[in-house]
Amino acid sequence: MITLINGTPSDLVPANDRGLLYGDGVFRTLKRVGGVSRCWPRQYAKLAADCAALNLRCPDAALLAAELAQLPPDCVAKIIVTRGPGARGYAVAVDAMPTRIVTASALPDYPASYSISGVKVHLCHLRLASQPRLAGVKHLNRLENVLARMEWNDASIAEGILLDEAGSVIEGTMSNVFCYRAGRLHTPDLSNCGVAGVQRDRILAFAEELGLTVMVAPLSLDALMMAEEVMLCNSVIGVWQVREFNGRVWHSGAISACLRSLLEERDD
Amino acid sequence: MITLINGTPSDLVPANDRGLLYGDGVFRTLKRVGGVSRCWPRQYAKLAADCAALNLRCPDAALLAAELAQLPPDCVAKIIVTRGPGARGYAVAVDAMPTRIVTASALPDYPASYSISGVKVHLCHLRLASQPRLAGVKHLNRLENVLARMEWNDASIAEGILLDEAGSVIEGTMSNVFCYRAGRLHTPDLSNCGVAGVQRDRILAFAEELGLTVMVAPLSLDALMMAEEVMLCNSVIGVWQVREFNGRVWHSGAISACLRSLLEERDD
Repeated sequence: MITLINGTPSDLVPANDRGLLYGDGVFRTLKRVGGVSRCWPRQYAKLAADCAALNLRCPDAALLAAELAQLPPDCVAKIIVTRGPGARGYAVAVDAMPTRIVTASALPDYPASYSISGVKVHLCHLRLASQPRLAGVKHLNRLENVLARMEWNDASIAEGILLDEAGSVIEGTMSNVFCYRAGRLHTPDLSNCGVAGVQRDRILAFAEELGLTVMVAPLSLDALMMAEEVMLCNSVIGVWQVREFNGRVWHSGAISACLRSLLEERDD
Repeated sequence: MITLINGTPSDLVPANDRGLLYGDGVFRTLKRVGGVSRCWPRQYAKLAADCAALNLRCPDAALLAAELAQLPPDCVAKIIVTRGPGARGYAVAVDAMPTRIVTASALPDYPASYSISGVKVHLCHLRLASQPRLAGVKHLNRLENVLARMEWNDASIAEGILLDEAGSVIEGTMSNVFCYRAGRLHTPDLSNCGVAGVQRDRILAFAEELGLTVMVAPLSLDALMMAEEVMLCNSVIGVWQVREFNGRVWHSGAISACLRSLLEERDD
């Protein structure tokens, strides 16, 4: 599939790009459906905010939108923005020119059951480190996710849930976590670790519209286990309800189904 | 200067290399002097240990040595080993083929005063996160170092010292830290954060030979400030004594000078 590097079709980046040397950059993953880049204003706003967190110049929205339009109409699009090529050493040159990579991959073919009856989820042993300067940002330093994903090979397990050092629930390796109980929708506070995804923001907005009380706060594993419904979200999977996790089984729930539909049907 | 990618002269890596996508890899920086790759057995052992920490296949020592020999006789050599190209997602394919990048840059021209009378050092505001699974490893997730290095632009400042969340001294942005007081050489324990460099190991070995009592333990900022000598080390700078840091000035000391000489003159 096509890859554009700074707007030019290519599969190659300079070996001295700081994205490779230091993970010095950020990224976005989004779906293109029928030629539309889903939730583009939110995706761009998040990219710009993440670039700002690293003091990285964010490419222009129109430029990126035009490059996304060159990808297949139905695909998973990925945008990477790095600090660009650099000399040896951590210091950033004043004239650093960001590299932008816009690339496509095939839409994944997850089993239909994942959306209908939910997924089996692993409780990861790795604990996420606390770094408020990077928390929430979807940056290229993703070794924790890689190590966590290495913890299982069982193809029937769709995702792993990560805790922080204190044992609070933070996120999935590739998703955000919500749980529902007694009229309240909870999702972990991500001010010390984790990635605050665009679908998480959308769910928070939709939940308020639905009249649910929304709680963004530390979430203990015990609280998660007592929830009526637990769900995972990201821009590719939409919403998956958790069916099996940490010794408990949940049946399909209406809140997960409702949020899944809203995420899919709307684009705001 | 020359770069070899998997043994072939090239400046380009695939845009889907997991080194770029996730910082999924490790690296080494070492000096070549008169055609000799300095401390190569130790450098290779550390590379192999770091690869093992990420469950990454380490390239053969003889292969890497032969590639280093193609670099200029006097240069800074860098070896990067990544997980190689991969499909979208954190899961590692069983047939993942590591990418090795061997590259050279010019020996830096630090002022001679840095070695003779010492350096001025900044106390970084950023606190290092605690992640025992990655601590000690020189991996490609280096955003903390990048953010810390952004804290100063003053060209008279040669390095920044980083603390952990608890306020203990851990390392410099590009170096390890030692301090000397009353016959004892202290260096921070790096089991929760920091990079355990090859020169740090050598200094620990040489210090024992010199009959110094060596303490590898948590090191408070207060203890550092009370030291008779504070020094920084890495494979490019050797040993720099700290002259000015956090409001205190130190005069040149014999322990720093001795360790600097041993590091430079010996190759074990």
